[in-house]
Amino acid sequence: MTRIALDAMGGDNAPHEIVVGAVESAAGLGDVQVLLVGQLSKIQEVLDSLPKDLKNDAQKAIESGKLEIVHAPDNVEMDESPVDAVRRKKDCSINVAMRLVKEGRADAFVSAGNSGAVATSAIFNLGRIPGVMRPAIATVLPTRIPRRPILVLDAGANMDCHPDWLVQFAIMGNAYSKAVIGRTTPKVGLVSIGTEDCKGNEMTKQTFPLLKEVRDINFVGNIEGHDLFKGQMDVAVCDGFVGNVLLKTTESIAKAMSYWLKRECFRGPWRILGALLLKGAFRALKSQMDPEVYGGAPLLGVPKTVIITHGSSSHKAIYYAVKAGVAAATNDVSGLIAKSIAEHAEDLKQK
Amino acid sequence: MTRIALDAMGGDNAPHEIVVGAVESAAGLGDVQVLLVGQLSKIQEVLDSLPKDLKNDAQKAIESGKLEIVHAPDNVEMDESPVDAVRRKKDCSINVAMRLVKEGRADAFVSAGNSGAVATSAIFNLGRIPGVMRPAIATVLPTRIPRRPILVLDAGANMDCHPDWLVQFAIMGNAYSKAVIGRTTPKVGLVSIGTEDCKGNEMTKQTFPLLKEVRDINFVGNIEGHDLFKGQMDVAVCDGFVGNVLLKTTESIAKAMSYWLKRECFRGPWRILGALLLKGAFRALKSQMDPEVYGGAPLLGVPKTVIITHGSSSHKAIYYAVKAGVAAATNDVSGLIAKSIAEHAEDLKQK
Repeated sequence: MTRIALDAMGGDNAPHEIVVGAVESAAGLGDVQVLLVGQLSKIQEVLDSLPKDLKNDAQKAIESGKLEIVHAPDNVEMDESPVDAVRRKKDCSINVAMRLVKEGRADAFVSAGNSGAVATSAIFNLGRIPGVMRPAIATVLPTRIPRRPILVLDAGANMDCHPDWLVQFAIMGNAYSKAVIGRTTPKVGLVSIGTEDCKGNEMTKQTFPLLKEVRDINFVGNIEGHDLFKGQMDVAVCDGFVGNVLLKTTESIAKAMSYWLKRECFRGPWRILGALLLKGAFRALKSQMDPEVYGGAPLLGVPKTVIITHGSSSHKAIYYAVKAGVAAATNDVSGLIAKSIAEHAEDLKQK
Repeated sequence: MTRIALDAMGGDNAPHEIVVGAVESAAGLGDVQVLLVGQLSKIQEVLDSLPKDLKNDAQKAIESGKLEIVHAPDNVEMDESPVDAVRRKKDCSINVAMRLVKEGRADAFVSAGNSGAVATSAIFNLGRIPGVMRPAIATVLPTRIPRRPILVLDAGANMDCHPDWLVQFAIMGNAYSKAVIGRTTPKVGLVSIGTEDCKGNEMTKQTFPLLKEVRDINFVGNIEGHDLFKGQMDVAVCDGFVGNVLLKTTESIAKAMSYWLKRECFRGPWRILGALLLKGAFRALKSQMDPEVYGGAPLLGVPKTVIITHGSSSHKAIYYAVKAGVAAATNDVSGLIAKSIAEHAEDLKQK
């Protein structure tokens, strides 16, 4: 039984979507226990308002112990800085959930809350894996090839990075890609502006030769923005500034394209008919690009499984994030990362 | 009459597409003379192979003096580094065309060749506008709003940037947006990872207060990847590494989406029918996103108009790049930039 501590209060659609996602995860995923952490009264309010089917599922899950509610008394206000709040409010939902993981009462943490706040709480409560210089947020993005998503890290935890940190990002991303995404020999690339070794900024030029030296990762060199979505790469390493811009740009262009397409499809009755006939195709396209099904972003480098999902997560995103949390905890990603980081330090020492 | 020196030999589809684009520009744009620069024999070969209509247009344009061929004897080989080639081969097409601009025999330069090579030749032959620290490549990208593209710079000329350079990029982008894109008060933003002043990396945090001080530009603060394509911003400033990654990622995701959509549309006869009915909509979507109609990327900061178009430019891209070159030269973008840069230096001195 994998136990997931789920932050009920984090995200734009909390607590409603989180509670629904919790019920669906507890009911739909075998061998999982969801510990739903937040203000009891607010969680209860959502549970009471659920449609009959879901309410039944919730009832059954609670009775069988698959869903448990853990009260977190402190409330983070809308106008509070989330990072300050986790520092000051010891018993806000993020901290209470994180402590469940720390104390071994849960195997993984999942939240749609502010990523900076989650990272702060994680590093404060759990510490880092020995030898890890900087934990990084890794994001899973779809590519042209079904079931071959690409992991991009760091996606926003560290702005100005040292080459050594990027080497560790590569090692950590490699372990996650193997254990959770299921790639046997992940192809690892360095995000840059040309494929030649010499292309890039100072940081990538210093990082390139270091990555070439790392045993056990399949470093394939620089990758350009062009190549990200081709489905020929498994892990893309960059600093958190570039990763965050890349991620948000991707979302932005995808939304702009959908917007343009929709506008064009409503021009005249024939086009509307065409759009109706293609409804299934559009739905498939949407789900192909849907970041929600990719299970959110793991915070790699802390000694337990921590998954951050998009602030706008729906119940579906929560379901997939819980699923990713289960996969990461079951496959002991943190343990694998600890092992790889230690081996790499050993290699460096021997030189 | 605006005279455009067009590099016939640069780009993946040279010389064929360039020659066709040259003929179309000379025939289709009023008051423009195209000086087509490259190896005479190769250009002639393409002209001879044109279909009848185009051949007639070419003949007429040559006879009326709207199209002129200028021989550039040096050939750049496939395996040569383009940047090295412009340094070594004084009479390659890029250098010959650039000298036409330098000597006042042409008003603007257009090439689909390697951007590094064009920038090198431009800076060597034309120098910089007094006070400009680093010329930058600006790229025009479509947004949700028709006819409100966004200018992103630097798109790849300078990797590691100083905050002062970014301030100048903002000033130069502002002038181009006014003069060529036609925005009266362009909104200028700094690409970062959050809208608050304090968000970003060291460089953006140092750049933010400097941009706030610049008179005459409408600096609206940080912009995130999210906001790039919403059509609420006119100029986005970033270093050349981030700009290049952003640009190529955009192309990559757009291609991936088209690929997925196409695949879905061929699943079953009803979908194929739907796709046929939506043919016009798809075409409109494609042209909306088509980077070719946005006229390529100006190199800003050199004292003459230099336009670089995508390496894979078709004849249509060449036509629009020539058009952009005419607009930039006619509106004296370089003069406006020189004026803004000088005024800004004056402001700094007075402090």
